[in-house]
Amino acid sequence: MKIFKYTDLAATTLDTDSIKSVKAAVAIGKADGASNFCMRIFTIEKGGYTPRHSHAWEHGIFIHQGRGQVFNQGSWIDVESDSVIFISGNEKHQIRNTGDSPLVFVCVIPSGPPEL
Amino acid sequence: MKIFKYTDLAATTLDTDSIKSVKAAVAIGKADGASNFCMRIFTIEKGGYTPRHSHAWEHGIFIHQGRGQVFNQGSWIDVESDSVIFISGNEKHQIRNTGDSPLVFVCVIPSGPPEL
Repeated sequence: MKIFKYTDLAATTLDTDSIKSVKAAVAIGKADGASNFCMRIFTIEKGGYTPRHSHAWEHGIFIHQGRGQVFNQGSWIDVESDSVIFISGNEKHQIRNTGDSPLVFVCVIPSGPPEL
Repeated sequence: MKIFKYTDLAATTLDTDSIKSVKAAVAIGKADGASNFCMRIFTIEKGGYTPRHSHAWEHGIFIHQGRGQVFNQGSWIDVESDSVIFISGNEKHQIRNTGDSPLVFVCVIPSGPPEL
């Protein structure tokens, strides 16, 4: 068993033309012997966003803290703490922080694709 | 894409000799086309607990709200909001609420076992 706080993970900061003010860390993955899924934790700072993209694998997302929006078929949909998002494979998606505090979410993917 | 609040799910109440004051719901599962993993949301009310058991599949857990303890190899380990727990297949485990408010957590399992 592995028990820890996600805030103790060494997070990777992602800040490029297409990603702004995002920190990401693998919480549960292959290194833990998890052979079926990978749990990552993302923190988007105020004003930040993930890239708008699509890929073959699905996302299972749970919003832990904060407030933001998800891009879905041309519209931005509000999400906040307690929201669940299921993004199927090949669906175009993007998440942005529209609140004043960090937007923190759990994002689960299948094993196989890059963990981060 | 599916976007909703977990609090809008119809939860199943589990209350037997071995489970006390637990509500559980499938947030993302086979019915959504999720073929690799299943995301469930558990709420343990004050004083409640899940059963002490083990099974072949692993758990990826993220504590969303509240305070509790996880039974791990004979000891109770404190967890709270922001905690991550990885329980490997066949590890004996139990979770109990030791706080004054509901203990809410995300629990991911692989596809295949019963979703709830």
